[in-house]
Amino acid sequence: MKLIANPLRESWSEILKRPTLDKLDLDALVQGVFDAVKSEGDKAVIEYTEKFDKVSLTNISVSESEISEGVALVSDELKDAIQLAKKNIETFHSSQKIEKKLIETAPGVECWQESRGIEKVGIYIPGGSAPLFSTVLMLAVPAKLGGCQEVVLCSPPNKEGKLHPAILYAAKLCGVTKIFKVGGIQAIGAMTFGTESVPNVYKIFGPGNQFVTAAKQVALSKGIAIDMPAGPSELLVLADETANATFVASDLLSQAEHGADSQVICVSNSESFLQEVSEEVVKQLLVLPRKEIAEKAIENSKSILLRDKEDIIDLINEYGPEHFILAVDNEDFYLNNIVNAGSVFIGNYTPESAGDYASGTNHTLPTDGFSKSYSGVNLDAFVKKITFQRISKKGIKNIGNAIELMADAEGLQAHKTAVTLRLNELKEDEGGI
Amino acid sequence: MKLIANPLRESWSEILKRPTLDKLDLDALVQGVFDAVKSEGDKAVIEYTEKFDKVSLTNISVSESEISEGVALVSDELKDAIQLAKKNIETFHSSQKIEKKLIETAPGVECWQESRGIEKVGIYIPGGSAPLFSTVLMLAVPAKLGGCQEVVLCSPPNKEGKLHPAILYAAKLCGVTKIFKVGGIQAIGAMTFGTESVPNVYKIFGPGNQFVTAAKQVALSKGIAIDMPAGPSELLVLADETANATFVASDLLSQAEHGADSQVICVSNSESFLQEVSEEVVKQLLVLPRKEIAEKAIENSKSILLRDKEDIIDLINEYGPEHFILAVDNEDFYLNNIVNAGSVFIGNYTPESAGDYASGTNHTLPTDGFSKSYSGVNLDAFVKKITFQRISKKGIKNIGNAIELMADAEGLQAHKTAVTLRLNELKEDEGGI
Repeated sequence: MKLIANPLRESWSEILKRPTLDKLDLDALVQGVFDAVKSEGDKAVIEYTEKFDKVSLTNISVSESEISEGVALVSDELKDAIQLAKKNIETFHSSQKIEKKLIETAPGVECWQESRGIEKVGIYIPGGSAPLFSTVLMLAVPAKLGGCQEVVLCSPPNKEGKLHPAILYAAKLCGVTKIFKVGGIQAIGAMTFGTESVPNVYKIFGPGNQFVTAAKQVALSKGIAIDMPAGPSELLVLADETANATFVASDLLSQAEHGADSQVICVSNSESFLQEVSEEVVKQLLVLPRKEIAEKAIENSKSILLRDKEDIIDLINEYGPEHFILAVDNEDFYLNNIVNAGSVFIGNYTPESAGDYASGTNHTLPTDGFSKSYSGVNLDAFVKKITFQRISKKGIKNIGNAIELMADAEGLQAHKTAVTLRLNELKEDEGGI
Repeated sequence: MKLIANPLRESWSEILKRPTLDKLDLDALVQGVFDAVKSEGDKAVIEYTEKFDKVSLTNISVSESEISEGVALVSDELKDAIQLAKKNIETFHSSQKIEKKLIETAPGVECWQESRGIEKVGIYIPGGSAPLFSTVLMLAVPAKLGGCQEVVLCSPPNKEGKLHPAILYAAKLCGVTKIFKVGGIQAIGAMTFGTESVPNVYKIFGPGNQFVTAAKQVALSKGIAIDMPAGPSELLVLADETANATFVASDLLSQAEHGADSQVICVSNSESFLQEVSEEVVKQLLVLPRKEIAEKAIENSKSILLRDKEDIIDLINEYGPEHFILAVDNEDFYLNNIVNAGSVFIGNYTPESAGDYASGTNHTLPTDGFSKSYSGVNLDAFVKKITFQRISKKGIKNIGNAIELMADAEGLQAHKTAVTLRLNELKEDEGGI
């Protein structure tokens, strides 16, 4: 890892730059696939699956018997692990429910919020090198808790035209309502427009490669909500001499193995600690199956030496890491002052992989600095909060005049009249007319 | 208003179609302005203000003395009204704050959420026919409550190169940190990239015409978050014989006066009531200053007669109105079953204009059916909810094995190792090594 000692503030933005892959201009490709899916439905989806995934399917729906077959292939101990993770995710996301709180903003003026599940949501689960069944838990569990009625899952089939058994098990366990063996642009297109098999949805969640990401952006421009903009995963560790260099190295590598474009940063006030972490990274890297991927990510990684705690927190907030591990003695200072981060992991026994799988927090988090403006996925993402208000006769007498004045000043007379007519009627009532 | 009696379900989607204005393709125009603002900053902003708004400015910043001058021009009674509205908006939005709830998802595994204000937000306030100072309240109040540090306001100057006094008063009252006399595409561009005067922001809020809407979409594609997609305003009233036809007509007109493309729908189980409302609309329309606008909107409006309550709620949920006034006897059925709406107004003394100005709820709401997937603006929109977790030695022993199994099954060995190393260390501790 490249050591950067005491960088000046002016150099931070350069140092903190995310690695950028050449971004292909995929708009025309996406538009072509979307047009075909819109006009030809399942037929187009099947053709593109053949073209892009090299698999011939007659039916893109996953049948109950396919699900049962898959479920039978998952070991009991993995099932237990998935159930434990599900329970913890449920516990944490349940705590995010809003209670109906009736607020009397003025006498006779009652306002409140209620949440309603987005009726139809789509979950995209990548296939490829890692079958991300954990993402099924992270998206389907809050979808059900939030009250979503239709939870559609799309994931690309493998060469045998099947989905990974653990994906099927997790989907079944979490109450996904429909499962499809469709990936890539055609999956996002199918959930955008609907086909004979795939329902259209109102919001699409989930990670994906460049094609999926581009397709989600096009879906967004067509009125489908999406969870958040996506970028390569990233981790920033802040550690001092009280931390464990072996653990820190393992955390950096667990981020690095995601992809060659993953970014890992280690910040410390101790040069010898950074040195130790660097050596541990080299050592642990050797035995990783995904060594080649992790190695590339580590090439882009940075060890930053900074002494002053104000400098440190400013640098971290300027970066806005997706994952932030905090393993220092004076953690309170950083906890109180962190503003831009997706998820924070505190202490020596809180690896990022805990949050990726089983602690209960969500692993769908803002990357690429989007923690400055976006929350990670949480229960809010699956619901709409509707406001309600009920105003009594007394209430409209209390606030009516203010509304009249403001509407008048904005030049919106009909807005004023709607109040005036009611106030006049109440005056007549009082007058006994 | 056109009466549609007992429409069959097959015809609903046609009946409920929103009026569509010819949507100009503004992408090239927006891109040109954005490029200029990005490279030339204030100079370009001033040039476009001259070109589009026909006003020559030397300074786009609103000075303290300009603010004081404006504030002095606002009448005391309007100031009182604005203060009352501000207090109610504050009361209601304060109630949306999340408490820090520490959740122990498993023994030794503590997770919680904390909210942090988005550090820099931008508020766009349209000028034109109506000076929407009420929107300043609706956006700046929750921005301050949410903890946003920089709250930038942009609004187009009038022919004298000034902003409306009530906009300046509301901005000052609500703690807007910087005010600029800039509108249109150049305002959105300035907040996207930053100029010598205008800070760049992380999220842009506020309504606007087609140009502003298109510019916000381009800003979104450049990584700036936005509040929600925008469309013409709309109202659906559900009323029965217990409602007051005069009041209902005034509510429909208060929506209709927003713009020729506004949509108003009245649903009832009583044909005579719908007839009465229609006659009242014609009567009240005559005296409105914005008669011509409202008349056009009323031409597109619909009176829908439906008897069955299940049909009625299904139709309303299929439409997903921005504003929904509910003035019926059996209101509970509809309150329990409404899923898609921005804001709900209950009873005969709850005009939509109450929510537009002073009851305390937000008036920035999803239009064009986006209530199916978006909440209206609320406190959530100004904050990020960050997750935190702290796992003890006991905690990692409890969930560590599940993480190892899941990481292994996903083929992510480094994720597993990060846990294994910790578990091994704890085993050694126990063994007294």
